[in-house]
Amino acid sequence: MTTATLLEAALAKLDAVKVPQVKKIALAYSGGLDSALCVVLAREKYGAEELVPIMVDIGQGQEEIDAGFAKARQLGIEPTLLDVKDEFSEVWLKKAIQANSDYNGYPVSTSMTRQLIAAVVAQRAVELGCDALMEGSTGKGNDQYRMHNVFTLFAPGLEILVPVRDFDLTRTEELALCEHFGVPVTEIITGGDDKTMWCRSIASGGIGLDTELPDDVWLWLTPPYKAPDQPTTITLTFEQGIPVAVNGQRLPLKELIPLLNELGGKNGIGKLDLWEDGIMDLKSREIYEAPAATIILKLHRDLEGWCLTKDEVVFKKLVDQRWGSLVYHGEWYQPLRADLDAFIAETQKVVNGEYTVNLYKGNVDIVKRQSDSGLFMPEIRAIQSASFNQQLCGPAAQIRGLPYEVLAKRNAKVGQPTQQ
Amino acid sequence: MTTATLLEAALAKLDAVKVPQVKKIALAYSGGLDSALCVVLAREKYGAEELVPIMVDIGQGQEEIDAGFAKARQLGIEPTLLDVKDEFSEVWLKKAIQANSDYNGYPVSTSMTRQLIAAVVAQRAVELGCDALMEGSTGKGNDQYRMHNVFTLFAPGLEILVPVRDFDLTRTEELALCEHFGVPVTEIITGGDDKTMWCRSIASGGIGLDTELPDDVWLWLTPPYKAPDQPTTITLTFEQGIPVAVNGQRLPLKELIPLLNELGGKNGIGKLDLWEDGIMDLKSREIYEAPAATIILKLHRDLEGWCLTKDEVVFKKLVDQRWGSLVYHGEWYQPLRADLDAFIAETQKVVNGEYTVNLYKGNVDIVKRQSDSGLFMPEIRAIQSASFNQQLCGPAAQIRGLPYEVLAKRNAKVGQPTQQ
Amino acid sequence: MTTATLLEAALAKLDAVKVPQVKKIALAYSGGLDSALCVVLAREKYGAEELVPIMVDIGQGQEEIDAGFAKARQLGIEPTLLDVKDEFSEVWLKKAIQANSDYNGYPVSTSMTRQLIAAVVAQRAVELGCDALMEGSTGKGNDQYRMHNVFTLFAPGLEILVPVRDFDLTRTEELALCEHFGVPVTEIITGGDDKTMWCRSIASGGIGLDTELPDDVWLWLTPPYKAPDQPTTITLTFEQGIPVAVNGQRLPLKELIPLLNELGGKNGIGKLDLWEDGIMDLKSREIYEAPAATIILKLHRDLEGWCLTKDEVVFKKLVDQRWGSLVYHGEWYQPLRADLDAFIAETQKVVNGEYTVNLYKGNVDIVKRQSDSGLFMPEIRAIQSASFNQQLCGPAAQIRGLPYEVLAKRNAKVGQPTQQ
Amino acid sequence: MTTATLLEAALAKLDAVKVPQVKKIALAYSGGLDSALCVVLAREKYGAEELVPIMVDIGQGQEEIDAGFAKARQLGIEPTLLDVKDEFSEVWLKKAIQANSDYNGYPVSTSMTRQLIAAVVAQRAVELGCDALMEGSTGKGNDQYRMHNVFTLFAPGLEILVPVRDFDLTRTEELALCEHFGVPVTEIITGGDDKTMWCRSIASGGIGLDTELPDDVWLWLTPPYKAPDQPTTITLTFEQGIPVAVNGQRLPLKELIPLLNELGGKNGIGKLDLWEDGIMDLKSREIYEAPAATIILKLHRDLEGWCLTKDEVVFKKLVDQRWGSLVYHGEWYQPLRADLDAFIAETQKVVNGEYTVNLYKGNVDIVKRQSDSGLFMPEIRAIQSASFNQQLCGPAAQIRGLPYEVLAKRNAKVGQPTQQ
Repeated sequence: MTTATLLEAALAKLDAVKVPQVKKIALAYSGGLDSALCVVLAREKYGAEELVPIMVDIGQGQEEIDAGFAKARQLGIEPTLLDVKDEFSEVWLKKAIQANSDYNGYPVSTSMTRQLIAAVVAQRAVELGCDALMEGSTGKGNDQYRMHNVFTLFAPGLEILVPVRDFDLTRTEELALCEHFGVPVTEIITGGDDKTMWCRSIASGGIGLDTELPDDVWLWLTPPYKAPDQPTTITLTFEQGIPVAVNGQRLPLKELIPLLNELGGKNGIGKLDLWEDGIMDLKSREIYEAPAATIILKLHRDLEGWCLTKDEVVFKKLVDQRWGSLVYHGEWYQPLRADLDAFIAETQKVVNGEYTVNLYKGNVDIVKRQSDSGLFMPEIRAIQSASFNQQLCGPAAQIRGLPYEVLAKRNAKVGQPTQQ
Repeated sequence: MTTATLLEAALAKLDAVKVPQVKKIALAYSGGLDSALCVVLAREKYGAEELVPIMVDIGQGQEEIDAGFAKARQLGIEPTLLDVKDEFSEVWLKKAIQANSDYNGYPVSTSMTRQLIAAVVAQRAVELGCDALMEGSTGKGNDQYRMHNVFTLFAPGLEILVPVRDFDLTRTEELALCEHFGVPVTEIITGGDDKTMWCRSIASGGIGLDTELPDDVWLWLTPPYKAPDQPTTITLTFEQGIPVAVNGQRLPLKELIPLLNELGGKNGIGKLDLWEDGIMDLKSREIYEAPAATIILKLHRDLEGWCLTKDEVVFKKLVDQRWGSLVYHGEWYQPLRADLDAFIAETQKVVNGEYTVNLYKGNVDIVKRQSDSGLFMPEIRAIQSASFNQQLCGPAAQIRGLPYEVLAKRNAKVGQPTQQ
Repeated sequence: MTTATLLEAALAKLDAVKVPQVKKIALAYSGGLDSALCVVLAREKYGAEELVPIMVDIGQGQEEIDAGFAKARQLGIEPTLLDVKDEFSEVWLKKAIQANSDYNGYPVSTSMTRQLIAAVVAQRAVELGCDALMEGSTGKGNDQYRMHNVFTLFAPGLEILVPVRDFDLTRTEELALCEHFGVPVTEIITGGDDKTMWCRSIASGGIGLDTELPDDVWLWLTPPYKAPDQPTTITLTFEQGIPVAVNGQRLPLKELIPLLNELGGKNGIGKLDLWEDGIMDLKSREIYEAPAATIILKLHRDLEGWCLTKDEVVFKKLVDQRWGSLVYHGEWYQPLRADLDAFIAETQKVVNGEYTVNLYKGNVDIVKRQSDSGLFMPEIRAIQSASFNQQLCGPAAQIRGLPYEVLAKRNAKVGQPTQQ
Repeated sequence: MTTATLLEAALAKLDAVKVPQVKKIALAYSGGLDSALCVVLAREKYGAEELVPIMVDIGQGQEEIDAGFAKARQLGIEPTLLDVKDEFSEVWLKKAIQANSDYNGYPVSTSMTRQLIAAVVAQRAVELGCDALMEGSTGKGNDQYRMHNVFTLFAPGLEILVPVRDFDLTRTEELALCEHFGVPVTEIITGGDDKTMWCRSIASGGIGLDTELPDDVWLWLTPPYKAPDQPTTITLTFEQGIPVAVNGQRLPLKELIPLLNELGGKNGIGKLDLWEDGIMDLKSREIYEAPAATIILKLHRDLEGWCLTKDEVVFKKLVDQRWGSLVYHGEWYQPLRADLDAFIAETQKVVNGEYTVNLYKGNVDIVKRQSDSGLFMPEIRAIQSASFNQQLCGPAAQIRGLPYEVLAKRNAKVGQPTQQ
């Protein structure tokens, strides 16, 4: 298809679809291709008198923010910048760590940021009297659903406009329209879909299942075979389930996580290559890098295995699994999430300790563990302990085995052979 | 304590405890310290006229079996050898792999073998008209419970004799008694508690939480930093969830697993250092090596993520978690295990595929995946597909978001702020 | 709104919506208002050359089927009648009973029949070379989703036409169109939404939450206060979890269930008035009557509590809960349903027994229980039994209490007060 | 066996068992047979210099307490009375109601009181410098485990003495010993095992599975066939999941529950006849009466179905099931219970409403429901609502059905027939 034909097709789509006419649009603006095109379409197609572009600083880095503002100037808009780094790291990521944030192996990252962005954009939109919300999702992915839910909750009644999806535009049509409307198209997120301090997603659509991943897709990661021959040894201190210090130096999460991304990444840690069951129940193969999350979650799980009771360990798996699924599916603001977090917060009071680990060519190797609130007490089971004489276990085994007497009798009675 | 005093204490314990008097004992004999001492105690303390020592070949290796028989000759007994390698690998390990065999990170190995040993010993004891079963467990661990359950089910009414536990003997007392009674004490399991083809447990009692593990505790494992600088690349083929071929060569599990133990082990794969919640709900820190299990279970889980539906993936986590816990707790012969296996077997019909992986310094790195029964079909979501127009997702998001309209109205009505 | 205006509005909707043009439509025809209107719309709006009306006998009763055929003659069509009563009762209802078929208190009935109807209609459509499937669901309920899933699986690629929903017609608009097109509108399902032998749903839309239900909404039920003053006593025999005989007389389910609907209904049993979370996650208040299901499920659960192990009882709750939810949500043909049924079938082998119950003014009162495969064996715990001396329980309690020694020490160490 | 022989046998048991010698015993005294015998045995067999009998008022009624004190005077002891009625009703029962307190159909009552009694007795024992705790459980039931856990946690290191169990006494032996030692044996709990305001347990050991229950086993219950022909209509008001008023009159739980026991009981409500899987995994058939619990829990569950989201309803079932099981098994003071309660408390904030119900011959029939925080909003799904046009559901069904397109393709590819 020639460029001209492509543009014609794209313009035809813009004409064919009847969209709502609105007055004042709050736009979740990132500076990426999609949201930049939104700026033009907001004016051209939705009859908007006013556009309120809002850029949210979620920890994507100053470079991306600067690039977004540079593009904004070219587009003739002045975005409001809302800084939610503290809320993201101190509220959302803390809950994520305590919940062992996991959905099929993915530490659930963009899933969170899109909802937080949607929440602050919607709240600002309501304050400013907007009658519509706009965002740049395509109609193929999960983000449209996540943002829709949050928009609906925080700005009920406002129109939700998702132009790329609603005009059914392909990526190449988007590019043709950008050229046509004079929208600058410099990519500002290098070679990837999305980046947060917690996890970076790699655009994996073009990488076949039978292709080894090239080394240059990684931002933080040095592949294990290129990583240093000497381990990096660190200590990580946890309080109430949250990592609070590296090598004894207290750091807020928004500094601690980037530090571990650097230290872990250079030692080959944090590659994720997995199957993801999306919100529409379709599978995709996803590639991520998440060095800090990999280190923190491995140690947090280990520390929980030490400080929580057996029953807590078992049940918290269910709670964590539900938490990860719920947040992934764009349901952060469902009451159930707060319920699960109440459970989790109660468990974390005793999750305190310190780990020394070697980071080495993809391995997170625990060298030392320390905790005052751990439940490992071998002395209870020691021969010399008052409470433990091995002879006690004979009767204990006999009582424990009673149901097998019952089964033996039942099986004999009904001629039921024992299942192999 | 002097050796003499120790022996006196031990002999005093033998005198103090009143034990049942029986006629014909079937002994689960391995050749280790505990079961060798049992041979003498069976005669001395339980009034037995006849002892039937049964040795079970579960894949511990010819060396251990030969050593066990050599010791038997010294003890003046002739054990019967029952070979259950095929049953263990073709029935038990297949189910274990399909169930992603996992209890707190431990692939559940000795947990299985003790139950299988108990089952064949008990069945043989009943056939031979024994009135008692004897085994060498101490009263500190899990195995006594596992064997008790199985003995009770397969040989109801027989006395269950567990001398080390029932006389409350310590390890040093056992050694003193062995010397006293002329029982040879050459260790036949080198430096570890128990070994099966699926996992080897390292005696971790003496290793502190603040001590780095020495390299010489490993049998199969070359620590990552000593492992080769070049990866070993292999392909592994799965049929119905079971690995059936390495590099295209079909192998039964009892050969495939040892091969992967060798290939994985030399590349630093399979170290496990974890918290285990024992049957008595006490925590212990356990160290295992399991190269083959690590490779197989990682790939099996990945393949399931590809071939099972989203709902199956979620629910099978519950089933697998229950399976691992049940088998660990010595409940293989509980009806629930067969129920869970019926579920699992139904899921595995489509779990077919082939993986190419690099084994490298502790990493199992997937290079290629192939499956005909996978559910990843990006073409369904392609723009050009008949079923998928992005515009469909606007209404889908709107319908999906309806509960948030309800929540917004409810919250407004009752003045409930949205939970952060 | 006058009738004339209403008709104009309805006709305008028919004109406004562009629908696919197809050649040969298979219609799921019941004779109700919606599917009768479909007959006309199929011809008028979708350009169909041929219409294949298929009526499915699912046990709705000969009266409804005759009425459907009478209306068909008036409409000038000759439906094919497919009798699936045996498949419904012998396959679907058996699985439902074994799964304790329950979704929020609803025994999951129409949820099943719609999927079975969709399956046979889709299969017939493919055999006959149809290019479209049509059904009469509105766009407000659950059935559209259930039928869509099944149509998609069994007849991939065929157009799915749901006229009432796709033209966005209200009930009154439908009536106006029926009059306009000469479609007879005699109601054939009296005073209710849907009836199967397993459960009848009452049209509850018009009944307020603060209104006592009138007595005349019930088909089978005599309200308790009008029911006989003498109980009806029956025995019900179960084999492998399935009721097979009433008062000793063996009956197939398709006869046994109607009999219990009669006996239970006249004694005031089977009223359901509950909250249902629909497929779109919206709540509705639903009213059902299900005398046979109420009796059978109560006794089946009791018998399971007797014949299954404690662990089976606990885990089967999860399985049953998932089964009910899955089937309700139109996912019968998801692989997970077959997986769950494999688990369930394994459990049911020992669920055999007989109950004598009094049916009396809303109460199902168990008078006698009998089972050979039950696991209640009080003799195991009798003082005189070999395996049970009360003294055994001292040590058992002490071992069981070990984790509390650990907790006491931990709490003392970290100054953690015990939670109230 | 003659009375004389019986006494000899019992005295022989007292001689045969070696029990610990202690100085100061705190006894959980109720005035029942078991704890009265304890008074004598404490002096005779354990060498105690001092006995501290503690009677706990848990709401068993003044009559039982008076009888207990009368017997105490005969025994020559002066029990301390600790009144925990408020703690039981305001803390424990509130949590129980919010958790829908259920274990296999049993509302979990004595399970709680024994733990609360153990907690206050243990705490008092530690304050008073006792070195032993004594209680009257037999070795056949659940209570010994419940009390042991709590004693261990609150009074670590103290001896736990359970004479009836530890001397392996039968009921008839106990009676013989009472006569011998001059212990008065008037029963003070009439015809039952245990009574709390929440549930009364009926001694069911002697009632066969094939015997209809006699009418005179009930304390509160008038069997349905003898109950009044006119319903009793009441309103019950819930705040945060707790019933706070009957017929508009605010009552504390310790008054509201007895009132509902009276009103429900006289209308035939609250008979429970069920299978219970005990702590030792043995089944027993249990009979209870619990009119208030039956009414409250039915309405509380209904109200939750209205005020909680679909996802909350589903997950809370797991939480509630775990809560009931945990508390039943004597694990109130496990950290997991507090975790579960944190979850539950978060859910209950919106569980507010009022029910009008008819109590009639065993039926709790809801007549009216009212709630401001309910999530039933039919207007959201109304045709005229902005957010809901039926046409939206076509695309929603199509997107929802995508996984079935995938399954159809996979099945075609691998020749997998669809599971029936």
